[in-house]
Amino acid sequence: MSKYQHIREAAYRANMELPKLNLVIFTFGNVSAADHESGVFAIKPSGVPYVDLSPAKMVIVDFDGNVVEGKLRPSSDTNTHAVLYKHCENVGGICHTHSTYATAWAQSQRDIPIYGTTHADHNTVDIPCAQPMSDEMIAGNYEFQTGFQILNCLKEKNLSYRDMEMILVGNHAPFTWGITAEKAVYNSAVLESIAQMALLTEQINPDAVRLEDSLIRKHYLRKHGADSYYGQ
Amino acid sequence: MSKYQHIREAAYRANMELPKLNLVIFTFGNVSAADHESGVFAIKPSGVPYVDLSPAKMVIVDFDGNVVEGKLRPSSDTNTHAVLYKHCENVGGICHTHSTYATAWAQSQRDIPIYGTTHADHNTVDIPCAQPMSDEMIAGNYEFQTGFQILNCLKEKNLSYRDMEMILVGNHAPFTWGITAEKAVYNSAVLESIAQMALLTEQINPDAVRLEDSLIRKHYLRKHGADSYYGQ
Amino acid sequence: MSKYQHIREAAYRANMELPKLNLVIFTFGNVSAADHESGVFAIKPSGVPYVDLSPAKMVIVDFDGNVVEGKLRPSSDTNTHAVLYKHCENVGGICHTHSTYATAWAQSQRDIPIYGTTHADHNTVDIPCAQPMSDEMIAGNYEFQTGFQILNCLKEKNLSYRDMEMILVGNHAPFTWGITAEKAVYNSAVLESIAQMALLTEQINPDAVRLEDSLIRKHYLRKHGADSYYGQ
Amino acid sequence: MSKYQHIREAAYRANMELPKLNLVIFTFGNVSAADHESGVFAIKPSGVPYVDLSPAKMVIVDFDGNVVEGKLRPSSDTNTHAVLYKHCENVGGICHTHSTYATAWAQSQRDIPIYGTTHADHNTVDIPCAQPMSDEMIAGNYEFQTGFQILNCLKEKNLSYRDMEMILVGNHAPFTWGITAEKAVYNSAVLESIAQMALLTEQINPDAVRLEDSLIRKHYLRKHGADSYYGQ
Repeated sequence: MSKYQHIREAAYRANMELPKLNLVIFTFGNVSAADHESGVFAIKPSGVPYVDLSPAKMVIVDFDGNVVEGKLRPSSDTNTHAVLYKHCENVGGICHTHSTYATAWAQSQRDIPIYGTTHADHNTVDIPCAQPMSDEMIAGNYEFQTGFQILNCLKEKNLSYRDMEMILVGNHAPFTWGITAEKAVYNSAVLESIAQMALLTEQINPDAVRLEDSLIRKHYLRKHGADSYYGQ
Repeated sequence: MSKYQHIREAAYRANMELPKLNLVIFTFGNVSAADHESGVFAIKPSGVPYVDLSPAKMVIVDFDGNVVEGKLRPSSDTNTHAVLYKHCENVGGICHTHSTYATAWAQSQRDIPIYGTTHADHNTVDIPCAQPMSDEMIAGNYEFQTGFQILNCLKEKNLSYRDMEMILVGNHAPFTWGITAEKAVYNSAVLESIAQMALLTEQINPDAVRLEDSLIRKHYLRKHGADSYYGQ
Repeated sequence: MSKYQHIREAAYRANMELPKLNLVIFTFGNVSAADHESGVFAIKPSGVPYVDLSPAKMVIVDFDGNVVEGKLRPSSDTNTHAVLYKHCENVGGICHTHSTYATAWAQSQRDIPIYGTTHADHNTVDIPCAQPMSDEMIAGNYEFQTGFQILNCLKEKNLSYRDMEMILVGNHAPFTWGITAEKAVYNSAVLESIAQMALLTEQINPDAVRLEDSLIRKHYLRKHGADSYYGQ
Repeated sequence: MSKYQHIREAAYRANMELPKLNLVIFTFGNVSAADHESGVFAIKPSGVPYVDLSPAKMVIVDFDGNVVEGKLRPSSDTNTHAVLYKHCENVGGICHTHSTYATAWAQSQRDIPIYGTTHADHNTVDIPCAQPMSDEMIAGNYEFQTGFQILNCLKEKNLSYRDMEMILVGNHAPFTWGITAEKAVYNSAVLESIAQMALLTEQINPDAVRLEDSLIRKHYLRKHGADSYYGQ
């Protein structure tokens, strides 16, 4: 049995959630699970349908994008995952989908405004949309650069990856992360729901206003603060 | 067996309907069932996935929000339920979700106009949206205050909780209630359907007009009046 | 066994299709099946959930709306069905739902424009929306009057119920019919699809134009004309 | 066993995917699979529900539209398939549906703008909408002419069927193709997803801009170029 069995299984289980949560069709998405001590992550093989996946088919890759174990080619987005793991020591899982509403916001190149407490339960600010890459970045190692596009956007907006676990890559689609692969997938589903509600909110009331700071802080802190009282 | 077994089971069954009716993802919703004679209600534990629920995991709470029986922490919205039960003697069940369309209306801070008989089968007026809470109310006991926000809105609009069993909490999401927990869940599903149709109506015809009073009264009375002829 | 067993079974099977086709939630819809020789029809009992239905629970009613056989109260819309059967000798089944998009068009009080061949495969003109009832009609026998509202609309627009098997009742919802109950349900599902596509068409292109007559005739006749070549 | 068993089975399997992928209701769609060596293709019989299909019920037709083997009448769109196979030697499968969003774009008579990488993963330009047919073409052999309508549109826009495997037929609905029937169905599902996202993108940002050429080339080439690194 592989010494990376735990992350193989975590990545497998998390990938299998994507079609159940209606976040992907065909092979349009990938989840990885990292082991920071070993400096590697397990990721979905490229272009393999979800029904054909198994823990053994996950590919083990290091944080520079080199395949460490596995016979299949890893997801074409592997280098984006690698960059994020290398620079974010507390990220244990990353999820990338082309889910309908979040992708439409990414294509629109707009941040998702914080219109309600569903959003505030998870984030205290608008969900950022990283501006499209420059031509030079695209011409370089595109997937590595996508990782830096994400990190740069967080930096410019003065956000920590610890607080903001979701981002829209302009013209492309969302990436989300978390302390586990399962949490990363959870964040993708939450993002999709927030993205749909935000569009509907603007359609119902074109003059809809952002949430007041007081309510944002209250909802976020009751779930995430030191005195949080959500969950068990 | 708990002396509250009947409300444990009613609350459990009603909570389990939420994912089947596509009203929640993950743990985004909670239903409670009250026993007014005993002065308590059974409510979903906080943050527990629906698949892991059972009648025994429901938490028994009194109308001041104190836990009476149960090992788990009750829903973070428990105090809102407590306030409503304390002030509404005929309410036997309360349901809270972040269902997509009703939440979008809440985020838009608009009442849902009465555009058709689907709406009039259940209510004779627009479905109210309670204005967002003041900063002082948020800084206090937030969930208790949400209960008063709902009661105040009904009072300001001269509505009885007996007639209007659904409300949008501005910037947040819907709450519904009824004589049983099952009826409260039914009302949440009806509200979601009305909310979607109302947006579509405005998109098809921006000059859509409200229903005439004569038709409102006819539809409401054939289901709810003294001479109603709906159902068995 | 009831002498009306054949229409009991036809009505039962057709009603059971409604939730499968996502045309209803709870008890929001009813289908009937007529036997014109006997002058009666079988219809869903009022307010009974679909899972509890059986052929034996269907109610047999004559074309004046009198119950002929059955212990349960028939659908509250029974008199509308009765009027239509009485005046339309070739109608063998009628279906009424509050399906989302068709109901939104009804609430908008707009005919559905004929924007494509999906529409032209079934109708050669816009799907009519009957204008809301006058106060006098509402104050009378409301459900009988709904039947006349439908017949009057067809007459005013110079349409035969043989050609146009679907209508929107303004402020209310759609009614459809056909030579069998199964066909009536088919028409409700087709109407819902046409209604959704028509709204999307206007959203994609606010200047979208109706289909040319030549294409309308071609598509309709290849399915319905003397030289039709659709089906077996 | 039929000498065309391989294409009977390919066409059957591909047709059965349509309802699973939510691309059709009832019998609104058809897929065919061609054998260019034998000069024939297998296609769905007309008006037969998907649940009643079997490989044996597929109809074998030559590239002029003549039935070669089979007892049932082939799809009413058969001649469109025949024209495309006759003029496109590398097309092994063709799929036609009335899927909701793609059909709405066809009814709107607009090309689908290339707004993101989901689109660029499959095409380097807007997805074309063939302008509606002239009255003379409609009055002729309509389905043959639909084939030429598609081929003419590709020619006018200087596109090869090898690169662009999807098209909207104005006022009608989409056609897609590929080297196999399975790939043609895949393309129909991808098109439906792209069509929905493009509308949402314009709703979120009416000033949304098309993708830059550099990003289009990068995404298309990583999946389809000589040095592609997608899949196994």
